[in-house]
Amino acid sequence: MEFASDNTSGVHPRILDAIGACNDGTVASYGADPFSASAAARLAELFETEVQVRLVATGTAANALALSALVPPYGTVFCHGDAHINTDECGAPELFTGGAKLTPVAGRAAKITPEALEAAHATFIRGFHQQLPAAVAITQATEFGTLYTAEQIAAIGAWCRGKGLRLHMDGARFANAVAALGASPAELTWKAGVDVLSFGATKNGAMGVEAVVFFDPKPAERFAFLVKRAGHVISKGRYLGAQMVAYLEGGLWLETARHANSMATRLAGRLGAIPAIRLAAPVEANAVFAVMPRSLHEALLAAGAHYYDWPGDGPGLAVIGSGDVLVRFVCSFLTRPDEIDRIATLAERLSEDPS
Amino acid sequence: MEFASDNTSGVHPRILDAIGACNDGTVASYGADPFSASAAARLAELFETEVQVRLVATGTAANALALSALVPPYGTVFCHGDAHINTDECGAPELFTGGAKLTPVAGRAAKITPEALEAAHATFIRGFHQQLPAAVAITQATEFGTLYTAEQIAAIGAWCRGKGLRLHMDGARFANAVAALGASPAELTWKAGVDVLSFGATKNGAMGVEAVVFFDPKPAERFAFLVKRAGHVISKGRYLGAQMVAYLEGGLWLETARHANSMATRLAGRLGAIPAIRLAAPVEANAVFAVMPRSLHEALLAAGAHYYDWPGDGPGLAVIGSGDVLVRFVCSFLTRPDEIDRIATLAERLSEDPS
Amino acid sequence: MEFASDNTSGVHPRILDAIGACNDGTVASYGADPFSASAAARLAELFETEVQVRLVATGTAANALALSALVPPYGTVFCHGDAHINTDECGAPELFTGGAKLTPVAGRAAKITPEALEAAHATFIRGFHQQLPAAVAITQATEFGTLYTAEQIAAIGAWCRGKGLRLHMDGARFANAVAALGASPAELTWKAGVDVLSFGATKNGAMGVEAVVFFDPKPAERFAFLVKRAGHVISKGRYLGAQMVAYLEGGLWLETARHANSMATRLAGRLGAIPAIRLAAPVEANAVFAVMPRSLHEALLAAGAHYYDWPGDGPGLAVIGSGDVLVRFVCSFLTRPDEIDRIATLAERLSEDPS
Amino acid sequence: MEFASDNTSGVHPRILDAIGACNDGTVASYGADPFSASAAARLAELFETEVQVRLVATGTAANALALSALVPPYGTVFCHGDAHINTDECGAPELFTGGAKLTPVAGRAAKITPEALEAAHATFIRGFHQQLPAAVAITQATEFGTLYTAEQIAAIGAWCRGKGLRLHMDGARFANAVAALGASPAELTWKAGVDVLSFGATKNGAMGVEAVVFFDPKPAERFAFLVKRAGHVISKGRYLGAQMVAYLEGGLWLETARHANSMATRLAGRLGAIPAIRLAAPVEANAVFAVMPRSLHEALLAAGAHYYDWPGDGPGLAVIGSGDVLVRFVCSFLTRPDEIDRIATLAERLSEDPS
Repeated sequence: MEFASDNTSGVHPRILDAIGACNDGTVASYGADPFSASAAARLAELFETEVQVRLVATGTAANALALSALVPPYGTVFCHGDAHINTDECGAPELFTGGAKLTPVAGRAAKITPEALEAAHATFIRGFHQQLPAAVAITQATEFGTLYTAEQIAAIGAWCRGKGLRLHMDGARFANAVAALGASPAELTWKAGVDVLSFGATKNGAMGVEAVVFFDPKPAERFAFLVKRAGHVISKGRYLGAQMVAYLEGGLWLETARHANSMATRLAGRLGAIPAIRLAAPVEANAVFAVMPRSLHEALLAAGAHYYDWPGDGPGLAVIGSGDVLVRFVCSFLTRPDEIDRIATLAERLSEDPS
Repeated sequence: MEFASDNTSGVHPRILDAIGACNDGTVASYGADPFSASAAARLAELFETEVQVRLVATGTAANALALSALVPPYGTVFCHGDAHINTDECGAPELFTGGAKLTPVAGRAAKITPEALEAAHATFIRGFHQQLPAAVAITQATEFGTLYTAEQIAAIGAWCRGKGLRLHMDGARFANAVAALGASPAELTWKAGVDVLSFGATKNGAMGVEAVVFFDPKPAERFAFLVKRAGHVISKGRYLGAQMVAYLEGGLWLETARHANSMATRLAGRLGAIPAIRLAAPVEANAVFAVMPRSLHEALLAAGAHYYDWPGDGPGLAVIGSGDVLVRFVCSFLTRPDEIDRIATLAERLSEDPS
Repeated sequence: MEFASDNTSGVHPRILDAIGACNDGTVASYGADPFSASAAARLAELFETEVQVRLVATGTAANALALSALVPPYGTVFCHGDAHINTDECGAPELFTGGAKLTPVAGRAAKITPEALEAAHATFIRGFHQQLPAAVAITQATEFGTLYTAEQIAAIGAWCRGKGLRLHMDGARFANAVAALGASPAELTWKAGVDVLSFGATKNGAMGVEAVVFFDPKPAERFAFLVKRAGHVISKGRYLGAQMVAYLEGGLWLETARHANSMATRLAGRLGAIPAIRLAAPVEANAVFAVMPRSLHEALLAAGAHYYDWPGDGPGLAVIGSGDVLVRFVCSFLTRPDEIDRIATLAERLSEDPS
Repeated sequence: MEFASDNTSGVHPRILDAIGACNDGTVASYGADPFSASAAARLAELFETEVQVRLVATGTAANALALSALVPPYGTVFCHGDAHINTDECGAPELFTGGAKLTPVAGRAAKITPEALEAAHATFIRGFHQQLPAAVAITQATEFGTLYTAEQIAAIGAWCRGKGLRLHMDGARFANAVAALGASPAELTWKAGVDVLSFGATKNGAMGVEAVVFFDPKPAERFAFLVKRAGHVISKGRYLGAQMVAYLEGGLWLETARHANSMATRLAGRLGAIPAIRLAAPVEANAVFAVMPRSLHEALLAAGAHYYDWPGDGPGLAVIGSGDVLVRFVCSFLTRPDEIDRIATLAERLSEDPS
């Protein structure tokens, strides 16, 4: 009953095999290997356009480095207050940008709109006394497991262009979004105005690789210097390249994402049917947010369920009473239907008789 | 009709005289002069305790450097969302702390409470994934011209000690607070748990000097290194020292602050009596925040009044309608009653007949 | 004929197997897994003392993060001018420390002495006008493939303690040093005064893992925050842990290092016997530095040999004439005797008849 | 007998008068006042070209902020090892640039040449593993009181343009250079390829004002943001503007510099004639560097002379024996001939009979 994170799962066998298969002989280090080159080529194919790519080992690095290529140290990045970059990266964006600010923007279910951006931007009227508006960052799928449609992204992209701002997308769970939406990777990114994407693979079956994908070559120009000084140039880069190639090969990335999404849907169906539990946000990707009585939550944990309660005000769509707790369940490529059934049955039973 | 800022006024004659009077001969540079030493001694007297003092030329430097002595680069500082450090210093705290975060806390009239701090702090449950709660910063008088009582500060100080956090006070207008409250400087700072105070003088009649006053010697230990690497060690330090001595001498600082406060009270009385205008916050120091119809605001500006409209949501105490604008008037040691009367009479007339 | 770097080799089969073997099931992420714990326990055994350990994916991260735990942003780190942290990490130490300086110290063959440190330290007499001397960093084995004896390290360690400075060791090739010297890991580190060691594994057969090993628990206290904000907390930490365990298991790390060292000795013997070639530094670990005529160098490259010419003034032990070039050959755990023989025979032939 | 620094002198009466004269009434704050505008206009006249100007209060701020507008955080700045930015600013350039490196270049008397730059630049062959060469910084007059001719600067400027590097000049004592060389300010700066100049006034009679003068408008574009986030936007900017206007008015700046230079020449003549004392560098501006026996130095200090011994290896033009000490005497606009005579006579007497 493991629903704590998609990071607690291991590596998909096909990716593990690829790591072993690239091991022979000597190849150039620091990302100049053929596997990394092949990964970049496949990403270009996938996104149907020329891209600049750099592979790194963590999502925090991908996001913070991408932002550092987009904004000056005196800039500000508009993002949702619940954005991972704002709440879970211990200041990596601030470090790598040299002190740029994240200006939180409000919105339900961790999504922001052009209207909310406009309101936030309108408070920047003091010239050099305030940080310069420089970029917007959105997360797809969001931190509350919801999705932006291609149209919604395009609206944000258009607003950014109108203001001269860059647009970054944290795609730690981009695969889950593509799998769910049916839109093409291109439609969800550069065609909608995204300048740089953190294309995640780790949460969806890789060992540890994320691609920073630049659709605009300008900010990518000296990106390798930013990556190196952050200690994120991996010396034996072939193992990142091999992972990414295998991740994309034959659509593995969508296959694993579809599975995780469907498990979340199944879990939501079961939990949502329990009277004591309310879903806190639409379940559109691989996460389920729910509100339940604290007593039930504690009983579930005591019974061996693994998942987290979630700080903050939540997605803003369901009331969280004083005796309630907001919790998050995440499904991964490894989640099995029987695990869903087990935790759901447990929750049903405990909600009727918590003792 | 100059109400744009207390910074548009010049230097009080007694302070200007002191600058001239210290000019003779050679003295040690970089703050090792007798005038700076005398300023430190007088601040110790004023605060009735041992203090460590460093004089700098700007309030932004005082605040950001003080914070950099209190928090690690991976720390966070809880402050009001409308705090000057959060909205008007272009990232100086982020730069000098090496990337620490400012976590905005809500509260009416730019004031925060232990309850609001508790709620904000409660979202920091993710260990090293989030910045470490490290300090609280409050402003006295606040950005909306309101005051913390000694008891309110002490409650925040007690909460900080309970959590192991440091407490900083931005006292750019500390003089206005002391003049208004009748409490002693000690009661409003270290006796209430303040670790470091930015003791402002510039807005209240000096040319450009602020004292960073440490009540706890520990974070002051190597503070001079932080100041130097920020370019804020003034080579001819005697002129800062002389300003501060004259500012304190004979209670000049309270005399000028009392005047500015009384002018604000007078302005508030006049403006508050105009039906079209509502005061947006209690007028407790030297600033008046008011809500007025945009048409009236534009008429006042056109008639030559100098003051600012204020971005953001305001103090949260008065409704700002869609046709309204929130504006700020600041009084200084130079503000004259006839200026008050002139702008007030103008506002009265224009509110009746804006054409 | 691959001698460009020990990073161009792949992963040792036993380490690759361990990666596969840890793949089953779900485990805690972000370094809280049992494999990482086991790695830490084994490092404690190896060093015969309590240690605080954090595993990261690159040597640059290990070095720069370790230094950021030792020095304030206004500090300086004394290191050799040819130190990897000074010449090959694109400012990672400056970034992670928040702007601390690396003060280059002179010395032959990339080694520094207490005397050279004393001379460098003696120029720091200006108080806060200069960066505060805060740490010394040495590399073992050095960038020129030479070694510090335990006694030499202890002399530096004693000097550091006398000045109140911290001592960091960049052990990217620590295994090669231990294998060559016969001294224990403890004798070469904490018993000699080393506070923190970057214990490398990547260059010596791992896929990508380095341990930051703290012998003093004090600077390790909040190290995880520094690591996280740098994006170096690996989400699926088990794969770092498993690599490190396998690397240490059964003395694999010394076995691979001994092999690399012996290959370098063999190469040095062959090249050193060629009249046109002079060894530029004693060959004590797995690197061979040599001076050769540029014409020979170019002929070797044209014939398919892979190795680098080396910028700068070299180890300072052999004259580099105007027609000469300084070059570096590195041997790895994969280097085969026949490769040595092949390049040596080629060099012999070309040195006699470069055409 | 005050020769410790040109900072120990006070403010020239004409500059003090100007400060008083600008005090009346209210003017715009934060540098938008007419005095600052007038200062900028006069600097444009002086340099015979369009310039972008920002006034700050310290030389460290001027230098570090100027560099931060020229180089990326992953860049390196070539400068002399004895440059003030490298030895006396406690890491301000590193802080404001976000971690850029200062790469020391060798050269006699604190001067660098295109040849030395070429040699230093030639070691940067490792791409993103090293900081990107981005700028050169020279000091005029130098830290050893020597001067670059217009031709020497132009040669450096040409080298910079050839490499695509920016050229910064630290002109803390630019007035002394212009006064001594007879070349025009334009010839010594933009006509010779200088992009940005820190134009000092403080050491030469002002209270505390330095102008960052951009000859290329490009890096100046958003400079105000960099200045603000460093806390260096002075709120009552009129007092900086008024100082600078008075400093330039009627050629005051050259008058005070000429005096200081002539005093240094006089002192050098007297000291150089004493057999026990050797001048350590040509005396071309307002500083005298000399080598003397330590016993004589100590006797001079004991007799009340104020000046500093100087750490490091010195200008490289005179041997400093083991019993010798290198010392610096600085003359200012206030230095009187009788002080020169007094210290010189004292040195003569003590050198004959140190007891």
